[in-house]
Amino acid sequence: MSELIVMKFGGTSVADPEKIQRAAERAITHRKKGKKVVVVVSAPGEMTDELIALARRVAPSPDPRELDMLMATGEQVGISLFAIACEARGVPATSLTGPQAGIFADAKHTKAKITQIRPGKIHQELKRGNIVIVAGFQGLNPRRDITTLGRGGSDLTAVALAAALEARQCEIYTDVHGVYTADPRLVPDARLIARISYDEMLELAGAGAQVMQSRSIEVAKKYGVRIQVAHAFDKHSPGTWIIEEVPSMEEAVVTGVALDRNQIKVTIRDVPDKPGMAADVFDMLGKANVNVDMIIQSAARGQSNDISFTVPKDDHESAIKALETVQRRLKTGSIEHNVNVAKVSVVGVGMRSHSGVAGKMFRTLADNSVNIQMIATSEIKISCIIENADGEKALRVLHKAFGLEKRRP
Amino acid sequence: MSELIVMKFGGTSVADPEKIQRAAERAITHRKKGKKVVVVVSAPGEMTDELIALARRVAPSPDPRELDMLMATGEQVGISLFAIACEARGVPATSLTGPQAGIFADAKHTKAKITQIRPGKIHQELKRGNIVIVAGFQGLNPRRDITTLGRGGSDLTAVALAAALEARQCEIYTDVHGVYTADPRLVPDARLIARISYDEMLELAGAGAQVMQSRSIEVAKKYGVRIQVAHAFDKHSPGTWIIEEVPSMEEAVVTGVALDRNQIKVTIRDVPDKPGMAADVFDMLGKANVNVDMIIQSAARGQSNDISFTVPKDDHESAIKALETVQRRLKTGSIEHNVNVAKVSVVGVGMRSHSGVAGKMFRTLADNSVNIQMIATSEIKISCIIENADGEKALRVLHKAFGLEKRRP
Repeated sequence: MSELIVMKFGGTSVADPEKIQRAAERAITHRKKGKKVVVVVSAPGEMTDELIALARRVAPSPDPRELDMLMATGEQVGISLFAIACEARGVPATSLTGPQAGIFADAKHTKAKITQIRPGKIHQELKRGNIVIVAGFQGLNPRRDITTLGRGGSDLTAVALAAALEARQCEIYTDVHGVYTADPRLVPDARLIARISYDEMLELAGAGAQVMQSRSIEVAKKYGVRIQVAHAFDKHSPGTWIIEEVPSMEEAVVTGVALDRNQIKVTIRDVPDKPGMAADVFDMLGKANVNVDMIIQSAARGQSNDISFTVPKDDHESAIKALETVQRRLKTGSIEHNVNVAKVSVVGVGMRSHSGVAGKMFRTLADNSVNIQMIATSEIKISCIIENADGEKALRVLHKAFGLEKRRP
Repeated sequence: MSELIVMKFGGTSVADPEKIQRAAERAITHRKKGKKVVVVVSAPGEMTDELIALARRVAPSPDPRELDMLMATGEQVGISLFAIACEARGVPATSLTGPQAGIFADAKHTKAKITQIRPGKIHQELKRGNIVIVAGFQGLNPRRDITTLGRGGSDLTAVALAAALEARQCEIYTDVHGVYTADPRLVPDARLIARISYDEMLELAGAGAQVMQSRSIEVAKKYGVRIQVAHAFDKHSPGTWIIEEVPSMEEAVVTGVALDRNQIKVTIRDVPDKPGMAADVFDMLGKANVNVDMIIQSAARGQSNDISFTVPKDDHESAIKALETVQRRLKTGSIEHNVNVAKVSVVGVGMRSHSGVAGKMFRTLADNSVNIQMIATSEIKISCIIENADGEKALRVLHKAFGLEKRRP
């Protein structure tokens, strides 16, 4: 049986007809080497955002089912143009929408999760010798409606397909050369990382590195899908491999640093100090599909606590609605929102065996007059909420403090 | 059981968010009167043409299956925005793509015919109290690919749905006030026709009146669907009813005149004068999906004939390819193309019982120095191919000669 690979092209890589043709050439190169090729394509350029803006001109809060129906057209444009480019080069290709490709999802419109992949139609088209081009970001829910998988959902489509098809690897093509030790737009001496473990990549993505969506890395880890992130149009770029942890990785204590400016800090004052109160708060936020990141509960002052946490800016509106319910039902005090925050994080599997990373991080920030508002740690990550205005400085001094600009031995 | 109506909004009626909101208001008005409402929506504005242009930037002759996949997004944008507008007004609505609505078609990509409608899902959504919004112009072919129904295909979707759902009527909303005795942009004293028979409307559509697509009128006639054509945003416009012939219609000899500038005249020189030759020519054109309109075969000159016919400009490219095969296989002479022609037609059921219409038409054209190149007649229509430059003049003098500017008694 010939080797099967999954390639994914993001929106910037299919933003115009010329780029679509160049992306198609890359797929054709694989096909001509005898490989079976499945391509996942995003909506071209800014199309998803444009469609959302259009919907908002019709209604400020568009119905989620219908917003999904609308947004799904973006990827459908991407796949058909990609297939047209392949066919025009004499290489048979078939585009499939998410539903046609057998991608089933749950019923949470605009944020659905993939529940199952039935790749019968994909296998059938591959057998006929076609390059199969699948719309990213979309699936069919139990009501047989089109649903979308949330921001970065095309990565998830690609990785989940690679797992379901038992592909040799999943190639994620984008407009950067791979994963860096820090965002190179903010830290000029950031270095491309050749290999990174799933866990580190997960933490970096969660910490604001936008190169890949977190859920897709979770799926890759679960099914052992080897991911290569590379530049769509630089054939000589080695890119970054996201793979199982290997011993040699442990040489570095810290692999990368990241800055996330997409968080809002919310504080609920005077939550009654009774058992289960915090659980109630986060249950209600969870039901409203708000992704809570960092949480701090202050020490009890008399009969009540303050609870602070961060939520993504995208979820702010639904968070506000959910918190109004929280306030009413639990009889809490005022709710404060702080949008002028940023989250800076250091990530590395080496932290497990090396102590002192947290101390070095806090010391570095203090030495540079960066005030820490909240701290959260995992086994391989430390994050601090700081003033937004300090974000870039914090990223640069941490990158330098952990020696990330130096080439590894 | 409450009354069910089908409404169709063309591209100009949903061209921007404000128009979509106004169109949605019309659907909501019906719904609030307790009617079951099915709305067929076209692609907003010029979106279909823009998508075709985009595809042509990727490849000059895009693969037809993929072009259908691409074009189908236009209506999907239309239906989701329409549903968003309804939902924002508190009226539950569900959009369905052609395949979701159970519209099955044959496998001729970009020109498919509807083969069957299974309206189970539509009935289900209507029962739940939803306005059901169906994408025009598209269906699912036997390979389970999305296919499109050709220019004006949304009219066909609307009429076929009205038939399948046994709707009381099918309302076609557009940017004109209905069907006129002639194109009012060319003939300033053209008059709105209150009622017209299916047969007359068919002939007018075939003669170039662009208000409705011919195939949709054929289906309406076959299933007895009453059609009302009206302006989308003028609630006081009575529009035109397209219905079964009624006796009172016969008062007028001629109902309307039409000009078609979308035809090309093709002449094949020296077709060998053997039995079956003409059949061979038109078989090959038919296989290439070229719609041939008027045909003239000259009297035999020795061993061969000239055959002239007209084809729509859209089919010119496929006609040229098919004719090269004709030329090679049948060993005919040269093939000539004349793009500077127009077709002018007079239509009316009254012709059946009134003689002299043809004579009056030819005399009127001759008196105004318009030279007739080809003539074709049906029971209720006479068409002449003339110089394109004479088109508007011919239309105006015929409109006047048959007294169409006068209000009927």
